Amino acid sequence: MPAKVKRVKSKSKNKLETRNKQKPAHKKLKIALAGFGTVGRSVVKLLCHEANDSFELTHIFNRNVVRKKVDWVPSSVRWTENISDLLSSDADIFVELVGGIEPAGEWIQKALGAGKSVVTANKLLIAHSGPELLDLAREKGTRIEFGASVAGGIPAIIGIQEGLAGDRLYKIAGVLNGTCNFILTKMEATGASFETALKEAQELGFAEANPRDDVEGFDARAKLVILTQAGLRARVRSEQIPCWPISSVDAVDFAYARELNCTIRQISLAKKDTEDGLSIHGFVRPALVPVSSLVAHVEGSKNLVMVTGQYAGQMVFSGFGAGGDPTAVAVISDLYSIARSGGALSGNALPAVEMPKHVSGEFTAPYYLRFVVKDRPGIIAAVATVLARYGIGIDAVLQRPGYPHSALPFIMTLETCTSAMLGRALQEINRLDFHVEPVLCMPILLD
Amino acid sequence: MPAKVKRVKSKSKNKLETRNKQKPAHKKLKIALAGFGTVGRSVVKLLCHEANDSFELTHIFNRNVVRKKVDWVPSSVRWTENISDLLSSDADIFVELVGGIEPAGEWIQKALGAGKSVVTANKLLIAHSGPELLDLAREKGTRIEFGASVAGGIPAIIGIQEGLAGDRLYKIAGVLNGTCNFILTKMEATGASFETALKEAQELGFAEANPRDDVEGFDARAKLVILTQAGLRARVRSEQIPCWPISSVDAVDFAYARELNCTIRQISLAKKDTEDGLSIHGFVRPALVPVSSLVAHVEGSKNLVMVTGQYAGQMVFSGFGAGGDPTAVAVISDLYSIARSGGALSGNALPAVEMPKHVSGEFTAPYYLRFVVKDRPGIIAAVATVLARYGIGIDAVLQRPGYPHSALPFIMTLETCTSAMLGRALQEINRLDFHVEPVLCMPILLD
Repeated sequence: MPAKVKRVKSKSKNKLETRNKQKPAHKKLKIALAGFGTVGRSVVKLLCHEANDSFELTHIFNRNVVRKKVDWVPSSVRWTENISDLLSSDADIFVELVGGIEPAGEWIQKALGAGKSVVTANKLLIAHSGPELLDLAREKGTRIEFGASVAGGIPAIIGIQEGLAGDRLYKIAGVLNGTCNFILTKMEATGASFETALKEAQELGFAEANPRDDVEGFDARAKLVILTQAGLRARVRSEQIPCWPISSVDAVDFAYARELNCTIRQISLAKKDTEDGLSIHGFVRPALVPVSSLVAHVEGSKNLVMVTGQYAGQMVFSGFGAGGDPTAVAVISDLYSIARSGGALSGNALPAVEMPKHVSGEFTAPYYLRFVVKDRPGIIAAVATVLARYGIGIDAVLQRPGYPHSALPFIMTLETCTSAMLGRALQEINRLDFHVEPVLCMPILLD
Repeated sequence: MPAKVKRVKSKSKNKLETRNKQKPAHKKLKIALAGFGTVGRSVVKLLCHEANDSFELTHIFNRNVVRKKVDWVPSSVRWTENISDLLSSDADIFVELVGGIEPAGEWIQKALGAGKSVVTANKLLIAHSGPELLDLAREKGTRIEFGASVAGGIPAIIGIQEGLAGDRLYKIAGVLNGTCNFILTKMEATGASFETALKEAQELGFAEANPRDDVEGFDARAKLVILTQAGLRARVRSEQIPCWPISSVDAVDFAYARELNCTIRQISLAKKDTEDGLSIHGFVRPALVPVSSLVAHVEGSKNLVMVTGQYAGQMVFSGFGAGGDPTAVAVISDLYSIARSGGALSGNALPAVEMPKHVSGEFTAPYYLRFVVKDRPGIIAAVATVLARYGIGIDAVLQRPGYPHSALPFIMTLETCTSAMLGRALQEINRLDFHVEPVLCMPILLD
């Protein structure tokens, strides 16, 4: 929208433009906030108590707003159930903390269209239409920031997009779901079953009554899609990334993992391959990781983001990936970023986000297979025969004592192979008649 | 310098200013670079091969420049031994990779004075006069960035100053020296002595022939001072922060640490206390850390920076803290940051850097004491008597078998006490006549 974009030429031909844009002492930016839930409350608290030199909260939108009202918010703030009050106001920045794709997406479009900048923590929406919203903001000469949409308070987006702007990133991996990390670290520490650990997570408020989005990997996947866009500059849709649930991981898997000097984490991974055009390989699944790695030492509900670049190597960001206050810090940091820039730089200087030719869950790695069988002679031979037919080498076979013959767990570790080949072998193996449950397959991630 | 600062008023009264400042396709920023060493070479490589849409390298300064010249740099680049060629050129940004306080500081002042922005990896200079150079840049309407001065490629400065702008940080701790981390992790893994591990580090190029700056903590201290300025917004001078060398750590300390579920790392720590005015407690010293912590799993020459805020809790950044390519990524990322902003936002919106009332190495923690004694009855009683007189409680006494009576190592762990009280007790204890070497004292850092 060139009409809205005011270009300013520097007087000095050879020097950078030397304007001093930010005048926090002179003009506070007006903030209209939608969504007074856990994160919204924390953002309002920080806006009222910490950041009130730079920002002035003008509106709070929520449904049933009368029941939400609190007395510690300045009386100048207008509480409303009508989103139009915010979108048609003179607020400079619209903060969207309602979540979900609609109507949040429509509101954000309207706010950008009205020349407001936007800060959002909405991972579903940004995974779904982040690049389009960035384009719209650029066109309107405003900004949209979503640092809070991934990994809560961890400054991963800014760390990747700005702190590592000079590198060429090709891999992103991480522990992006605090609920799964709580459950798996609990299973690791106490030998609890998945069900017991999930129940404890629910009692402590780390897991929802319906834990499906977390346990099956959908929550982590939305964050991975956003990180893939931000760091690998590739436009991936959530449904292109396969997810495996952590509910199939059992206490016995931690015991076996330990014998391999590993533990088990829900890993979200995206890797760029540019050999024949841009391809992205990505997944969210439980995986074995070395106990010596940083990723094995992310405590409880914390998150960890690893990015690997051609020049700087592997960088790690870790911290609280959820919760009202950490997520609010990310929201307020985004507000400051907009304040610093005068509202106009959204994503400039970043390479364009490309549409990959291929997106797949294909992944070449050594793998861990766990069987639970009705024991009888010849089982290993039968499995090994199928694997050999697909050219897959066996690295080790381990069987811990003390389990009943009617449901005997044992594991195999495989040499590096493609997931496609292994998938075909597993289809055959799963048809053999000695299984008590389907084979659990996890990659072993060594770097 | 108001004359140089051009303020632009937005036409729209209620919206953010909506200028589109960055035009990488239209105008490349001209870069003049001083210092063609390891980092300089990598920066030039990245400038010539990766970032040449946005930047144009115009000058390279080095002493003995004829011997430095390489043929893979475009012929348009001017090689010179005369720094004035750079400072009086029409370059937009001066990149200083020479190091040391002078003449680098004078050059940077001249560059800022001439309206150029500056990017530097110079930790000594920024620790020494960072706030003054930031003030000068602000006054001149330009920018100075120093992301590469701390922890190489790890985006710690931007992560702290921008990604965590919404928080109130009160503690910074980290593994800031890759040489020490290489030596200590080598001692941990192999049981080697300090001398053997240092020799290996030197052979592999991880330690200098004169390793004093690394081993005694001076290198880490300069980085800690910069992080304290950036994150705690406190102006600390290097000489206010006490350092302890890692050379007094012995193989036996790792064996004892392991029995305490700990390991040993060189830790740089700064903590803010605002009870009666601003105080900073800081040190660089070997310390015990839990094996379950992230800091225990920083590999080899990598670095790790932990910051703790009132709202987001503890955040961790880790990666390669040195080396040509990782440091060059930080330099190029700073160049992009200046490009994005049009050169004018240095440190705005950040709280002012304050001068603390007190700076001290005082630190309250549980402590580890390691004795090497000529054995005889009554030693523990003698030590315990002194400690009791200072009100310091003993938590445990451990003595591993297999050492000669003439030089017997044993350890004590103490309950939480102040370092001041413990220091006085240790003066007395060290005067007792059974010591073969002075008592080694390390804090046990549990969070």
